[in-house]
Amino acid sequence: MIKVVEWGTGEMGQGLLKFILDRPRDIELAGCIVTNPAKDGKTVGELLGRPCDVVMSTDFEKVLAEAKPDVVCINTQSNLHEVTGQVHPAIRSGADVICIAEKISYPWASDPDWAETVDAMAKEQGVSVLGTGINPGFMLDALIVMWSSVCLRIDSIKATRVNDLSPFGPTVMKGQGVGTTVQEFEAGVADGSIVGHIGFPESIMLIARALKWEIDEIVETREPIVTSVERSTPHVHVAPGDVAGCRHIGKGYSKGELKIELIHPQQIHPHLEGQDTGDYIEIHGDPDVNMANKPEIPGGKGTYASTGNYIPLMKDAPAGMLTVVDMPLPRFLTPSV
Amino acid sequence: MIKVVEWGTGEMGQGLLKFILDRPRDIELAGCIVTNPAKDGKTVGELLGRPCDVVMSTDFEKVLAEAKPDVVCINTQSNLHEVTGQVHPAIRSGADVICIAEKISYPWASDPDWAETVDAMAKEQGVSVLGTGINPGFMLDALIVMWSSVCLRIDSIKATRVNDLSPFGPTVMKGQGVGTTVQEFEAGVADGSIVGHIGFPESIMLIARALKWEIDEIVETREPIVTSVERSTPHVHVAPGDVAGCRHIGKGYSKGELKIELIHPQQIHPHLEGQDTGDYIEIHGDPDVNMANKPEIPGGKGTYASTGNYIPLMKDAPAGMLTVVDMPLPRFLTPSV
Repeated sequence: MIKVVEWGTGEMGQGLLKFILDRPRDIELAGCIVTNPAKDGKTVGELLGRPCDVVMSTDFEKVLAEAKPDVVCINTQSNLHEVTGQVHPAIRSGADVICIAEKISYPWASDPDWAETVDAMAKEQGVSVLGTGINPGFMLDALIVMWSSVCLRIDSIKATRVNDLSPFGPTVMKGQGVGTTVQEFEAGVADGSIVGHIGFPESIMLIARALKWEIDEIVETREPIVTSVERSTPHVHVAPGDVAGCRHIGKGYSKGELKIELIHPQQIHPHLEGQDTGDYIEIHGDPDVNMANKPEIPGGKGTYASTGNYIPLMKDAPAGMLTVVDMPLPRFLTPSV
Repeated sequence: MIKVVEWGTGEMGQGLLKFILDRPRDIELAGCIVTNPAKDGKTVGELLGRPCDVVMSTDFEKVLAEAKPDVVCINTQSNLHEVTGQVHPAIRSGADVICIAEKISYPWASDPDWAETVDAMAKEQGVSVLGTGINPGFMLDALIVMWSSVCLRIDSIKATRVNDLSPFGPTVMKGQGVGTTVQEFEAGVADGSIVGHIGFPESIMLIARALKWEIDEIVETREPIVTSVERSTPHVHVAPGDVAGCRHIGKGYSKGELKIELIHPQQIHPHLEGQDTGDYIEIHGDPDVNMANKPEIPGGKGTYASTGNYIPLMKDAPAGMLTVVDMPLPRFLTPSV
């Protein structure tokens, strides 16, 4: 039995809680930390609508001290500075840490000092810290690395993830610029309110870490996906000529040569203009890899599945700040019966 | 620098030798063992038509003793009893061992005693033994395991590898029954002269090992691929109504339920009947995986690429008889410059 504390109970946290509760003979939910005071004192069972007596609490120090978890899973925010106050106490509690913040999948990309501090803390405590998720964490990095192992030569890598944002709420629509005019989109990119995908530098550097490539320049571009037909969701209406999503591209160069190109157009209802959703990997080399997975693995499910499935792999991982390319081949955790 | 001795200089061995010679700052070719006396005393350079002074020798004990390799790569035959006389002395020399014999990818499937003996020998010497290859070793097992890590639930797995045998010589044609009549094919399957693919029990058990599934029955079937059009290669001519290849299927059951189905139709010129070659993985669960890689990764290149790329991962592997699902995420070994 692995004792786990879950930190965060949004959509991702709830998905992971269900994953854990589906494996009662493998993982014990030893505690649950919330940030929203409205949830404090309620049970996980009330939140999920299924039996579970674990009480949610905002008092994280108390939960960590009492639960004595083997692993703390942090499903809260995206950026390093937003999760510092969660990662540090989790490490100090002596637990291994898995976190879905996109930036922690390769924290050296955005804040090397943050990464080194966590690495030192984790080594001092003898625990491992890992960033996971569908992307970064699998589709545009670890899976590419896996495929690279059947190649004799690699010239360049190009991978594309085409997904459908339609199920998401207003926050995602805003961050991707869905429903804006082209002019508003350009202004939003310029002022940072339209961010597109978080994780390109991290995925590029994960590939580079595994393949020992020296990537010396990363360029990101965000272009509006202008729709020619009307597209709508309960949260947004997009007229022809306006923006249905953000075509975000990350390029990694080595000495001026394009080595890694990651393309992630995110939009509502891509099929309305004949665009299939899917995950695509091209490795140009000897032999070529030309992979498609259609439709795409859903981002939410893929993220909490990946996180949950890494839980049993943490015990034998070396201490320190790790990445998915430092880990064993990941695999589905079959529930014990 | 990793010191490697290559054992075997057939097509696979030659491919791996080139992989090694392409990485002169990463891997040192410390010796080369041949079984064919006609090659004894010649250099690898003569064999490959490129500069290399390493002398090939049938005296394996002398090569192993003088080269003191870190890793011995064995690219010779398919079955365990055929490689015993190579694996044992390689272990005794104190080297890690990588071997492409299909049966060694999961030796417990065909000969548990053999596997346990090698495991004990390897642990005594503090070395690791690993079976690799495109299949078994990657396409119908390790890659499936990788994909399983983004699933919340898995009901069953189905994977298909459709390849083109046209480039191969008469031995392969015979083993797959290419050019036989349907009657001859059935007789060949019955008497064991038509074997189809070697490795289904191994791939099925590799998946089961990683996913902790109890597979209690494995059933293999071999059906003739009857051509409706004429198909020919320099080595074989197949008339309409005769056999262009072998559709070999391996099924793994748990308590009567089909959990893993691996399908490997091998034939000459599949495109003549509109059949695309490729590697296909379906995981039926939540979410589904529906992957295609087209065309397929060529078996030869994929096998020696996979083998070569595992070389640097052997140093930190635990002692004993290992499998690809016990190893770190494999990755392309970029040649140092």
